[in-house]
Amino acid sequence: MSFDIGKNIHLTIFGQSHSKAIGAVIEGLPAGFKIDMRALKAFMARRQPGQKGTTARHEADQPVILSGLVDGFTCGSPLAMMIENTDARSADYKDFKRVPRPMHADYPAFVKYEGYNDIAGGGHFSGRLTAPLCFAGGVCLQYLGKQGVKIAAKLISAGGVRGKKMQECIASAQDAGDSVGGIVECCITGVKAGVGDSGFDSLESSLSRVLFSIPGVKGVEFGAGFEAAFMKGSQHNDAWCFDKEGNVRTRTNNHGGILGGLSTGMPIVFRVAFKPTPSIALPQESVDLKTGKSTVLKIKGRHDPCIAVRAVPCVEAAAALVLCDYML
Amino acid sequence: MSFDIGKNIHLTIFGQSHSKAIGAVIEGLPAGFKIDMRALKAFMARRQPGQKGTTARHEADQPVILSGLVDGFTCGSPLAMMIENTDARSADYKDFKRVPRPMHADYPAFVKYEGYNDIAGGGHFSGRLTAPLCFAGGVCLQYLGKQGVKIAAKLISAGGVRGKKMQECIASAQDAGDSVGGIVECCITGVKAGVGDSGFDSLESSLSRVLFSIPGVKGVEFGAGFEAAFMKGSQHNDAWCFDKEGNVRTRTNNHGGILGGLSTGMPIVFRVAFKPTPSIALPQESVDLKTGKSTVLKIKGRHDPCIAVRAVPCVEAAAALVLCDYML
Amino acid sequence: MSFDIGKNIHLTIFGQSHSKAIGAVIEGLPAGFKIDMRALKAFMARRQPGQKGTTARHEADQPVILSGLVDGFTCGSPLAMMIENTDARSADYKDFKRVPRPMHADYPAFVKYEGYNDIAGGGHFSGRLTAPLCFAGGVCLQYLGKQGVKIAAKLISAGGVRGKKMQECIASAQDAGDSVGGIVECCITGVKAGVGDSGFDSLESSLSRVLFSIPGVKGVEFGAGFEAAFMKGSQHNDAWCFDKEGNVRTRTNNHGGILGGLSTGMPIVFRVAFKPTPSIALPQESVDLKTGKSTVLKIKGRHDPCIAVRAVPCVEAAAALVLCDYML
Amino acid sequence: MSFDIGKNIHLTIFGQSHSKAIGAVIEGLPAGFKIDMRALKAFMARRQPGQKGTTARHEADQPVILSGLVDGFTCGSPLAMMIENTDARSADYKDFKRVPRPMHADYPAFVKYEGYNDIAGGGHFSGRLTAPLCFAGGVCLQYLGKQGVKIAAKLISAGGVRGKKMQECIASAQDAGDSVGGIVECCITGVKAGVGDSGFDSLESSLSRVLFSIPGVKGVEFGAGFEAAFMKGSQHNDAWCFDKEGNVRTRTNNHGGILGGLSTGMPIVFRVAFKPTPSIALPQESVDLKTGKSTVLKIKGRHDPCIAVRAVPCVEAAAALVLCDYML
Repeated sequence: MSFDIGKNIHLTIFGQSHSKAIGAVIEGLPAGFKIDMRALKAFMARRQPGQKGTTARHEADQPVILSGLVDGFTCGSPLAMMIENTDARSADYKDFKRVPRPMHADYPAFVKYEGYNDIAGGGHFSGRLTAPLCFAGGVCLQYLGKQGVKIAAKLISAGGVRGKKMQECIASAQDAGDSVGGIVECCITGVKAGVGDSGFDSLESSLSRVLFSIPGVKGVEFGAGFEAAFMKGSQHNDAWCFDKEGNVRTRTNNHGGILGGLSTGMPIVFRVAFKPTPSIALPQESVDLKTGKSTVLKIKGRHDPCIAVRAVPCVEAAAALVLCDYML
Repeated sequence: MSFDIGKNIHLTIFGQSHSKAIGAVIEGLPAGFKIDMRALKAFMARRQPGQKGTTARHEADQPVILSGLVDGFTCGSPLAMMIENTDARSADYKDFKRVPRPMHADYPAFVKYEGYNDIAGGGHFSGRLTAPLCFAGGVCLQYLGKQGVKIAAKLISAGGVRGKKMQECIASAQDAGDSVGGIVECCITGVKAGVGDSGFDSLESSLSRVLFSIPGVKGVEFGAGFEAAFMKGSQHNDAWCFDKEGNVRTRTNNHGGILGGLSTGMPIVFRVAFKPTPSIALPQESVDLKTGKSTVLKIKGRHDPCIAVRAVPCVEAAAALVLCDYML
Repeated sequence: MSFDIGKNIHLTIFGQSHSKAIGAVIEGLPAGFKIDMRALKAFMARRQPGQKGTTARHEADQPVILSGLVDGFTCGSPLAMMIENTDARSADYKDFKRVPRPMHADYPAFVKYEGYNDIAGGGHFSGRLTAPLCFAGGVCLQYLGKQGVKIAAKLISAGGVRGKKMQECIASAQDAGDSVGGIVECCITGVKAGVGDSGFDSLESSLSRVLFSIPGVKGVEFGAGFEAAFMKGSQHNDAWCFDKEGNVRTRTNNHGGILGGLSTGMPIVFRVAFKPTPSIALPQESVDLKTGKSTVLKIKGRHDPCIAVRAVPCVEAAAALVLCDYML
Repeated sequence: MSFDIGKNIHLTIFGQSHSKAIGAVIEGLPAGFKIDMRALKAFMARRQPGQKGTTARHEADQPVILSGLVDGFTCGSPLAMMIENTDARSADYKDFKRVPRPMHADYPAFVKYEGYNDIAGGGHFSGRLTAPLCFAGGVCLQYLGKQGVKIAAKLISAGGVRGKKMQECIASAQDAGDSVGGIVECCITGVKAGVGDSGFDSLESSLSRVLFSIPGVKGVEFGAGFEAAFMKGSQHNDAWCFDKEGNVRTRTNNHGGILGGLSTGMPIVFRVAFKPTPSIALPQESVDLKTGKSTVLKIKGRHDPCIAVRAVPCVEAAAALVLCDYML
């Protein structure tokens, strides 16, 4: 659960779905930065359940600041926060060490931790840990905002459909006890040319590293992405040009704002593929690790029909953490 | 150019395309491991030019061991190697600081390094630096081989076509002074369940981080990848089952061998999208940073019509480095 | 406030002396380790005030586990704990941004954080942050104990005297509104030969790095330490020999159990010099940063006459963290 | 042999005493910095043998730049250099795996690397690896020099004597086939207040970590150091005052220029204790690991009678690396 970002920001996220609390410690923020707690809570609320197309669970997710703020300003000491867990129903999960849920980490976690993993609510593999991620990313978004950087993600496809039909598609999957996948597209503007690094610290390396830590992500692509593999150089290449103010731009943006791991000054554009929610109401085949026999599992409880919906602010948070680290 | 992998292996790659030498220093390899230099050179030869569909440049790329080996065995001290650069033609590149090549790092590197970047051959943004990456990955492949882990990548698509037609498509692009993109698929077998970590150190996070450091990569997807976003949970979910030996497996492998950032024991499968080679012979629009006017650029020299071809062993090397780090 | 230890354990300590809470997050502990909370609290109690020769402040310092433990066993997820701050008297400190206390971090922290540092109780420079350090180190001590490693530190000198006279010397300094320095010696037994590393990760490098993070430490020496600089090789060299069981030992232990950054199997012995408590009741000369004039400062409040007394378990905790990291 | 410094500079040192080459790779230097190679070689020459009181071996130690420099300026890519080993006499060392030298790493390295360690010349435990350290530190010294920071170390004691008698004392030890220890004092001026960090990244933590990587270091102390442990607060405390220009200073400098891990603007002063050279000509008791019997060892070859003499520039290099990292 190590969340070390680049060289300036160090983020540690702790907690399990049903532990006393989950939280985050952020080191490396500059002192004297005023955090707008109202805006931060509004940002975090975007990933909370209870929205259309999400679970009915109520999670207040109120962040409690433990340290690092004095009179609303960062003081140079680590910013620590926690969210107390209140609405836990551990009993729902108790059998999953014996009969692992398909498409969840239950089985490999059982092997890795030799049975000592916290199974309740998925333990620290739970999507719930994206709440402290959004807290940390939300702080970074505010910092970037002051530098003129804007980050905006949106759901562009769900269950294979786009636009207004997405809500319908999600609702109909939910009614059928099923779920759907989705694609989130993110666009970052206001980043000057030359931000980033080469090698393992390329912008794409750092962004994809954090993005793939969000539960359910199956693919990340920049600019033209996989489509580029089907193109010719003469189609794909973006020509350099000057805009009216004399700034260097490209006529098209197939490169997605990054070349050689560095920002080019064009909008940074990437897409993230989310799998369908693994917890579905339909009966599923699994194994009983005690008896060594096949069995059928029926997952109860409340689950999002499309995790990509609530993942939108998580994608923004991930991007903000990475950009903030480079720009500090 | 920092290449720090996980917690056990630290890889530093140095060099520019036309510097005296390029090379790598690998820390963290266990002492007493015998390196098969013949096999290693054969592996490295797979990324060398001169194959079908690649540039005609001759690069011997003979690795010289500087330290870390005694009588062919690792001695616990960093394994350092270099490849001397011999076939450099710096004059080919001298104008690219003024008129940056489309789709190359020339312009953002010029901004980031305030004009002090080494432009010759793309400097340290050059694909040439994948030679030391292959050296390091090739050593890891040998280590993994002794643990029963096999890594095999292949080009599955070029310029939008698959199979035998790919060579034809590449050749025809080359004839036209153009280039094509491609997709490399990699399959890792022999990894037991429970390898990996959660959070930013998830298997997908670590793999994608290293993969996106390879020049030209535009997308990375695991298992069903972007296709998962178009599926329902009931289609996408892989059922757990026992195989004949009583091992836990899944009936299908949409998850690509990784759940919650941990290996499941199933083959780890991922695909990497490569853009078309940016250097094409056709004239291209660019900017003259000195005059502030638009201009037309014609790139001379010898370039691969499809970088994905030579990238195949690089993908294997990247995967080997990551897996080796987790398994040490 | 970054506390990254070696490659296996990552410790993050957060909090300021008077923030809502202070705490620690420990990543990298193996799953399935049972923590003896009673023993841990007893260990932490050794650094608490209220002992002879320490301040009269009452700090309950009860650790609250936030995550990482299930039924008393580590679960592989980060172990997070906090200690709520209750007995804060911020008003005592309000003027120290204007008139910095001699020998405290008030002035350099004011410069570094541009006045936004938390001055109350010394903020995150406070010795109070050794409480979470002792929590983390105490957990490691338990782990090491199961491997047969014992760590024991003691105060061997205070105010220039040794033995029973130390308490007297400390008490008399306290009566005079003054303070004294001290030396803590630590001995680690049960570490086999070959633990450690060369270069910046030598045992001495790692131990000294953590030890110098304890407030008030002015010197660290291993084995014969500074005395070695006054010796001849023929006096200082420890001869190798076999003990009765045939183990390789040295006849003397001037090397302090470490050679080349690696343990030799002999007891690891080091000493840590602590300065006198900087907060003394006597009037002291300082500067008024507002008026730009000299002034006289009189520090009120309750302070340890000899910080080395309560530092003894901190030294053990620091050593345990380092050793545990190498031995995991 | 990992040499990771702080968050800006990453140094990797490779090589063994008798490998093909030793060298260093430095990442994180700013692009566009002109290195004065003549001054750098002059700095490196200060640690070379052949001076008074050092071994008679001839080591040219000519650094060969492999990458990172274009026309004498750093180009933003890692600065890599090597020194080819020429004067190797491996046969001198061949028996030390069987009969380890007292006070050397032979035995613990044999255990750690299971006999695969490179024993020739001490392998990568050799003091010879301080040559690339001096290269890297020498570059940093030049960078700091442009910021007004000066670092000067000197030998203040050898074999227990000070001043002009030191040379005599060293010479007489050499004549007797013996060696002496010594103390190096270092003074850093020109560092403004507020440089450094708290916790494990305190200035003392970072400096001691690098200093203890230099072979033979047994102790490090700052300001009054161990002497502080014998003082009262009223004696030890440095009063804040203004100098004539209105800068904040302290009347005395017992604190050694660092408080709370941060520079105070006063000179940073520390001392480093070096043990006597372990290789002495006198016969010494050791063990034969093959026969399991005691034996007597007589070390041949050419050795410095006082390693502290040549360590002076190494101490400066270590300090420069740390300071440069904080100030970049």
